[in-house]
Amino acid sequence: MATNEVNGHKTNGVNETATKHDFSSLKVNQSRLLDAIHTGCKFGADHRYGDDPTETGMARLSLNDADKQIRDWFTATAESLGCKVTFDQMGNQFAIRAGKNKTAPPIMMGSHLDTQPTGGRYDGILGVNSGLEVLKVLHENNFETEGSVGVVNWTNEEGARFPMMAVSSGVWAEAVPLETAWNLAEVSPREDGQRRTMKQELERIGYLGTQPASYKAFPMAAHFEVHIEQGPILEAEKRRVGIVKGVQAFKWFEITVKGRDTHAGTTPFSARMDSMLCAAKLIVESNKVAKKLGGLATTGILTGLPGSINTMAHTVTFTLDIRHTEDEKLAEVEKECRAEFARISREESEKGCQVEWQELVDSPAVIFHPDCIAAVEASAKEICQELPMTADDGQLWKYMISGAGHDSCYTNRRCPTSMIFTSTREGISHNPQEYCSPEDCAIGAQVLLGAVLRYDRSRVEQGDLK
Amino acid sequence: MATNEVNGHKTNGVNETATKHDFSSLKVNQSRLLDAIHTGCKFGADHRYGDDPTETGMARLSLNDADKQIRDWFTATAESLGCKVTFDQMGNQFAIRAGKNKTAPPIMMGSHLDTQPTGGRYDGILGVNSGLEVLKVLHENNFETEGSVGVVNWTNEEGARFPMMAVSSGVWAEAVPLETAWNLAEVSPREDGQRRTMKQELERIGYLGTQPASYKAFPMAAHFEVHIEQGPILEAEKRRVGIVKGVQAFKWFEITVKGRDTHAGTTPFSARMDSMLCAAKLIVESNKVAKKLGGLATTGILTGLPGSINTMAHTVTFTLDIRHTEDEKLAEVEKECRAEFARISREESEKGCQVEWQELVDSPAVIFHPDCIAAVEASAKEICQELPMTADDGQLWKYMISGAGHDSCYTNRRCPTSMIFTSTREGISHNPQEYCSPEDCAIGAQVLLGAVLRYDRSRVEQGDLK
Repeated sequence: MATNEVNGHKTNGVNETATKHDFSSLKVNQSRLLDAIHTGCKFGADHRYGDDPTETGMARLSLNDADKQIRDWFTATAESLGCKVTFDQMGNQFAIRAGKNKTAPPIMMGSHLDTQPTGGRYDGILGVNSGLEVLKVLHENNFETEGSVGVVNWTNEEGARFPMMAVSSGVWAEAVPLETAWNLAEVSPREDGQRRTMKQELERIGYLGTQPASYKAFPMAAHFEVHIEQGPILEAEKRRVGIVKGVQAFKWFEITVKGRDTHAGTTPFSARMDSMLCAAKLIVESNKVAKKLGGLATTGILTGLPGSINTMAHTVTFTLDIRHTEDEKLAEVEKECRAEFARISREESEKGCQVEWQELVDSPAVIFHPDCIAAVEASAKEICQELPMTADDGQLWKYMISGAGHDSCYTNRRCPTSMIFTSTREGISHNPQEYCSPEDCAIGAQVLLGAVLRYDRSRVEQGDLK
Repeated sequence: MATNEVNGHKTNGVNETATKHDFSSLKVNQSRLLDAIHTGCKFGADHRYGDDPTETGMARLSLNDADKQIRDWFTATAESLGCKVTFDQMGNQFAIRAGKNKTAPPIMMGSHLDTQPTGGRYDGILGVNSGLEVLKVLHENNFETEGSVGVVNWTNEEGARFPMMAVSSGVWAEAVPLETAWNLAEVSPREDGQRRTMKQELERIGYLGTQPASYKAFPMAAHFEVHIEQGPILEAEKRRVGIVKGVQAFKWFEITVKGRDTHAGTTPFSARMDSMLCAAKLIVESNKVAKKLGGLATTGILTGLPGSINTMAHTVTFTLDIRHTEDEKLAEVEKECRAEFARISREESEKGCQVEWQELVDSPAVIFHPDCIAAVEASAKEICQELPMTADDGQLWKYMISGAGHDSCYTNRRCPTSMIFTSTREGISHNPQEYCSPEDCAIGAQVLLGAVLRYDRSRVEQGDLK
């Protein structure tokens, strides 16, 4: 069969007319989906903000005791649906529901069940539960897919406890060495002053598997991920579904500004090497540069030493997170920040400070696979037709570029991938009050169902399952 | 005898002609002074920066074990000179060398022996040792002063361990209630999570005295303090002595900026309440305002929560230290900062943040006593005549306003007071590499000797000792 090239991906196309309506009677169960989300959130609930039992955030840091509990729950839930559940050397959990063809790689629906320390109930959690809900719908309808279909729970996506984002899908994609991941030490030391590694914690909670963490050992036909948008755009434009075509590029840096710790009362401005003032000017400048070039810049952490009210800081360290949808533009943001930081620290920072850059993460822009995007698009358009119109321009779906990184960035390196975004109240995420309405959760799962079954059907048409 | 009013002080005048040359043969011993400084610095030495045994900083936090050792050393040293040594309820140590008149309040030479956590060998330490050196010179010359003369070591001047600057001279002046001071908890919790109070630590090291900490129980005729300048002015102008006429006003604030913790990748600038960016703009603005109005502004501490690279801080707290030589101008700096902070947080901080101010310290400008200033001036001018000329304008001394607060600010409320400044290398202080040359240390002590003896002599002339 003929294949085309789109954005460097081989594409077989998803034949919309051939697949339409074969499964339009399959409907996700909104209340069952929400029950599953909130039942699972009992493990690691924290940061109560209201009276309703569901009005808490989450603190389910990867591989802690609550994470073990939700993993056990995941296995039990999937097994009750007739799935085979395995886990690999990184604790990534794979639940597989066999299709007519039981040997070809499965289509996986995946996300993560770990959270930020002050996280919410939807980031990652909605994606895994949407996958499980799709399996439940297939199960209760005795629907047999062409190839196998499954759900994956990726380990430590947040990078909040072990400081590398999406590290375990990274190992699976062979983008991160296994030893590097295993040796990551937790960010906060324990009471005894020790920091446990990922491997130690995988072992402790019983999730250090023997199955190699690799796309070679566990290949996937495709990867679909439902996720809350985590931004305010869908809500502001009164739309319901984001058809995610890619992920913006981002880089993380740690910037160190070195000055001199002299007395706040006795040192005239002309004699100061004030690293805090310098850092403040650099942060303001990074914002200007990113704004001018259509990107983003954020400083989330800043520490100053020695930390005394009447003594200037000799050293200030701050993080810089810069993002852009285009790699070339991100490089421009970085270049301009480097030039301006050097100039400001030299010329506009009293007697001058030293600035040093350390790159922590370099994540180029991701372009998802056109076949997966097409499957999501066809499904989203069908679902949106049945919903009340709220958008001013009459379109309830929107093509989007994800602002955040996801496990899908790594799976996209090894199998066709795309994502589905749902509306997020006020764009608030990584926060206990993160919220996606029950209706929007169900819409996400329903679009996922349609996308997966379209893609599954297309595998037959493309001869993928012979 | 007639008295005049100068700056609200009663003044008797110091009769220069009558006192000149009576004690010009009394010379401080530079090497003995430096030996004493460096011997004492063995207790609490830290932060080595060079190979010489004296090339370390200090970490002698108030009431720690090293502070107990230097206190014991202070007592032993003073007692070996025939002094009577007592300490009060705040652990302030008083060493008194009796004069002809043994009942009138003594002239005290004082400063402090505690340091910053990354402090140097001269801040405070030079003042106490200069006083002890003066006593040694009087002792070896069998010089009998008219009234008694002594040295005081004030407790916790730095406010680095127990967070209130010059708290114990403040109690002595009855400006700070005893209970407030006793209940101050140390800044950093101990391993067991507990914070000890000043009273607990005074008791632990055996320096909780029964003598009331009050100028009523321990009155002083005058208070003279030698101190390193802690700024770069004397060195830059190649002068040797600062005749300190007062201390600039300062205020300390804790500023809290409240925003919202949303995702760094998914939140467009237009939807951000970025408390870190807002705080950075406020710090830059405080610098502009202070510069414009001829004052100073410094941020030494900043913390952001929750502290995640890819999450905006929801709350940033930073300290603001503002200073000016005039109270009215300092009020203007504060007023303009308050107005600009409100405007910036509202208008220039994306969607806007909330700013809250908490005042921590309000220290009005201090004007020292004209009689003490005159005594210092007469002594300084005499000493400077004997030194090689280095200043471009032919004047080795300079009238100065102290940029930093000192115990002398509190003593000035209850007895005539002034200070003597010595040159400080590159103006560096509150830093292990803080340095005052042996020659300049000795000049400070020599000016102190001349000032104290002039003031002592003037007491007879004024009928103060009858």
